Amino acid sequence: MEKYDPEQLSLETIVALAKRRGFIFPANELYGGLAGFYDYGPLGSLLKNNIKQSWLNKFVHSRTDMHLLDAAIVMSAKPLTASGHVGGFSDPLVECEKCHKRFRADQLDSDSCPLCAGTFGPVRNFNLMLSTQVGAVEDSSATAYLRPETAQGIFVNYKNIIDTMSPKVPFGVAQIGKAYRNEITPRDFLFRQREFEQMEIEFFVHPDTWNVHFEYWKDEMMEWMEEIGLAIDVVDPVEIAPEDRAHYSSRTIDFEFTYPFGKKELFGLAYRGNYDLSQHAEHSKTKLQYTDPLTNETFVPHVIEPSFGLDRAILALLCSAYREEKTDDDVRVYLELPPHIAPYKIAVSPLLKNKPELVDQARSIFGKLKAQFGNVAWDDNGNIGKRYRRQDEIGTPFCVVIDFETLEGQGVTVRERTTTTQERVALDDLESYFAEKFSL
Amino acid sequence: MEKYDPEQLSLETIVALAKRRGFIFPANELYGGLAGFYDYGPLGSLLKNNIKQSWLNKFVHSRTDMHLLDAAIVMSAKPLTASGHVGGFSDPLVECEKCHKRFRADQLDSDSCPLCAGTFGPVRNFNLMLSTQVGAVEDSSATAYLRPETAQGIFVNYKNIIDTMSPKVPFGVAQIGKAYRNEITPRDFLFRQREFEQMEIEFFVHPDTWNVHFEYWKDEMMEWMEEIGLAIDVVDPVEIAPEDRAHYSSRTIDFEFTYPFGKKELFGLAYRGNYDLSQHAEHSKTKLQYTDPLTNETFVPHVIEPSFGLDRAILALLCSAYREEKTDDDVRVYLELPPHIAPYKIAVSPLLKNKPELVDQARSIFGKLKAQFGNVAWDDNGNIGKRYRRQDEIGTPFCVVIDFETLEGQGVTVRERTTTTQERVALDDLESYFAEKFSL
Repeated sequence: MEKYDPEQLSLETIVALAKRRGFIFPANELYGGLAGFYDYGPLGSLLKNNIKQSWLNKFVHSRTDMHLLDAAIVMSAKPLTASGHVGGFSDPLVECEKCHKRFRADQLDSDSCPLCAGTFGPVRNFNLMLSTQVGAVEDSSATAYLRPETAQGIFVNYKNIIDTMSPKVPFGVAQIGKAYRNEITPRDFLFRQREFEQMEIEFFVHPDTWNVHFEYWKDEMMEWMEEIGLAIDVVDPVEIAPEDRAHYSSRTIDFEFTYPFGKKELFGLAYRGNYDLSQHAEHSKTKLQYTDPLTNETFVPHVIEPSFGLDRAILALLCSAYREEKTDDDVRVYLELPPHIAPYKIAVSPLLKNKPELVDQARSIFGKLKAQFGNVAWDDNGNIGKRYRRQDEIGTPFCVVIDFETLEGQGVTVRERTTTTQERVALDDLESYFAEKFSL
Repeated sequence: MEKYDPEQLSLETIVALAKRRGFIFPANELYGGLAGFYDYGPLGSLLKNNIKQSWLNKFVHSRTDMHLLDAAIVMSAKPLTASGHVGGFSDPLVECEKCHKRFRADQLDSDSCPLCAGTFGPVRNFNLMLSTQVGAVEDSSATAYLRPETAQGIFVNYKNIIDTMSPKVPFGVAQIGKAYRNEITPRDFLFRQREFEQMEIEFFVHPDTWNVHFEYWKDEMMEWMEEIGLAIDVVDPVEIAPEDRAHYSSRTIDFEFTYPFGKKELFGLAYRGNYDLSQHAEHSKTKLQYTDPLTNETFVPHVIEPSFGLDRAILALLCSAYREEKTDDDVRVYLELPPHIAPYKIAVSPLLKNKPELVDQARSIFGKLKAQFGNVAWDDNGNIGKRYRRQDEIGTPFCVVIDFETLEGQGVTVRERTTTTQERVALDDLESYFAEKFSL
């Protein structure tokens, strides 16, 4: 595979690599797992942090019109009643009358149970929010919810942000955090989980200008997908038909990605109008609006919502980056991840781990590269060939090897992941060599 | 106040500043709040991210013996039964028989209700975990829990990390994430919340060496507290007496901090022995051990646990940094935060916002400083004096002002937060000027 081909790659290959190389483990695996939950291992955590940082750099830190927020995950019932989630955030559920297994009614292909051919009972609505009881004892406690989307934490803080930050419309509020949906049938690895992480922006605009901002954000989202290394040729921005959109939305685009299991949603861009602010204004009896300091016009801002599923981004990225290359006697597997996304940018190796002079020199180089470039791996296990293969599999773009010639002032070997080419780089040039490679 | 004095500073002052300047808002405030939950606003989110980054840099990225983990927050009942939380993670609860208010029995000073002087009923144990039902319908669903500490996510992944990363003992696993305790009486702002964030390390060592590692981690923790700017003179490492330690711990230190409301726990360092790994090995019927590749000795590693409450760190940091300085006609408030922790390192201002030539020049300088130093604020609201005060209050160490002399090649004014001194710095020297200031 020289590039991602959804027909050639199986999801099992990615799941196995993710497990084997410490990216992602099934949660509670030691106890048989918990369906719909995954844990990020050491490499998955680094990858995840790099994606978050890339998103923050592009959409928050490099702008002057975006504020960060980090709201609590558990929310009380009132805001989620106002937003419509307590009443209406549900999937249609049917139960087979013979084997009593439950299914999502809208995902069934036939009228009879796919497991036992039994007949289904009536369709019921099943609320997808996970609930909990907050407070000291049951009769006095309050039902609260694990938020079904990070967005509502932004809307309920709209007034706080207006009051404290005095932002000028248009402005955005960005948030990264966990959200929960009690999926009837979690499946497809990270694709449909019960606990997942979102990166969401609510961008508040003047109602007359929403279309311009919508187009702008569509382009920004596509640009970022390219920047992190997603296979952009299998990303399709799909206009959602009016009858399929949420009732408050006049325009929605689903960015669909062709996963090994089919073409499905990756990210979304929705025009939410003033639905959320109006609902919260009504339910909380608070004015949630904006007065333009120049024109004195007062209005309820409309909202453009670019929404990014972080776990889906990771799944799509692992698929996009996965490569197999046939060699003489086996298959070389590598991940073609960009340096700012790969768990490690560089791996540093002493040729032999039992030669103190090599190890000392390697440690010194390791320290310098780490100080300048951040995530750098130390790898002294097995022979050099094995180390290259191991670093290939986790996507490390460069390996630096310190050998006896290094001690004689002959520089180090730098080996590139994708081409497997090697070149000799002088010690004094090493930092500028990588600075240039990473600035491309 | 030239330095932090717990007797002089009231918690209300910090709560009010945090609210007014967009650091921290009560969660669901629009709907009357939810006791024990807080949302981090724009500046609080930046501050929090900086603290996380400082912690990751010191304890993960600059080391070669530490692995990251990011486990799911919701955990199934089995691992938390093994860890003892389902059976024993509880506080003693009493109810007043007259007014029916509930209290923590161990926090009451008298035998009668502090609200109505009524008498208390019997003491009951109240489990502090928040629970939820995962699964499609109630009769088939499983009770799961919002983890009470991030630590258990590390222990249940011990085998996965050994199998995938082949770490050599001693090694650590570090994790940042949310945890939950259904506190009977949440109080003291961020100090005792029901949803909070932890930064925890489980450091796995040979049983014979635990004491050396314990001392090492004690020093490391103190060092980091100084690095982030905590008032180290009110941090007290308190040895916990045997009768007060958890039953599995042979040594525990609580790092107590003198908050405005008293001397209470900030961080903790516990020697957990092999309790957790042994419990999980027994309950999961899995071997959780380690074989030394050199000596072939097989053993269950013992654990040293440096545990950091992120919200408590933020509360202690805001208290530590808060300063009031009497001027001729009022009081100047500023936060003495180190540059790598402050929400913004620098604020850039055009002297006048309606002079395009000043604004253009300021934008250009802003872009350059932002690219090099990360969090840089743009501030063009009100007169310069007001901007200085505003940046003082959020801890910005430096303000850069672009005026008409700047356009004539006379550099910019750099004004320092703590001393309020101003100096003129040439444009060409600006980046190296700050690079030197921030490297101190």
